[in-house]
Amino acid sequence: EDSAVPAKAAACVSCHSADGNPLVAGVPILAGQRADYMAMALRAYREGRRTGGPAGVMAFYVKDMSDQDIEEIVQWFAEH
Amino acid sequence: EDSAVPAKAAACVSCHSADGNPLVAGVPILAGQRADYMAMALRAYREGRRTGGPAGVMAFYVKDMSDQDIEEIVQWFAEH
Repeated sequence: EDSAVPAKAAACVSCHSADGNPLVAGVPILAGQRADYMAMALRAYREGRRTGGPAGVMAFYVKDMSDQDIEEIVQWFAEH
Repeated sequence: EDSAVPAKAAACVSCHSADGNPLVAGVPILAGQRADYMAMALRAYREGRRTGGPAGVMAFYVKDMSDQDIEEIVQWFAEH
């Protein structure tokens, strides 16, 4: 399947990277993580259930994401 | 080094498992995750910066953890 980064995940890759080695300290590895967990985490950021510090950065990136966007992004990271 | 589960991580293993394959859907894989990220996440649960749903379960487990406990647990998962 297409291993190129989907446009929606491009922003994520800037910190989380595309090969599982985050470029930024304290940022979790997403490659191979469970898609259902990542979807729950993104919804938690979007709905303000994760706050403070880095959560604020995530909330900024996630605020306009639809459930469909979230699904696409987490599938990509789970498979890469 | 000793690969046995440290007592403090025993409760974690019941859902997250010790070999990287969580026993429970929606529960993140911790094996090999960044220790600094996991420590930040545990402090967020302990300090109530992650709320709702599964975060409530985590807050229950983390509420009496010291920073030292957290450090020991995240080091173990990062290395296993």
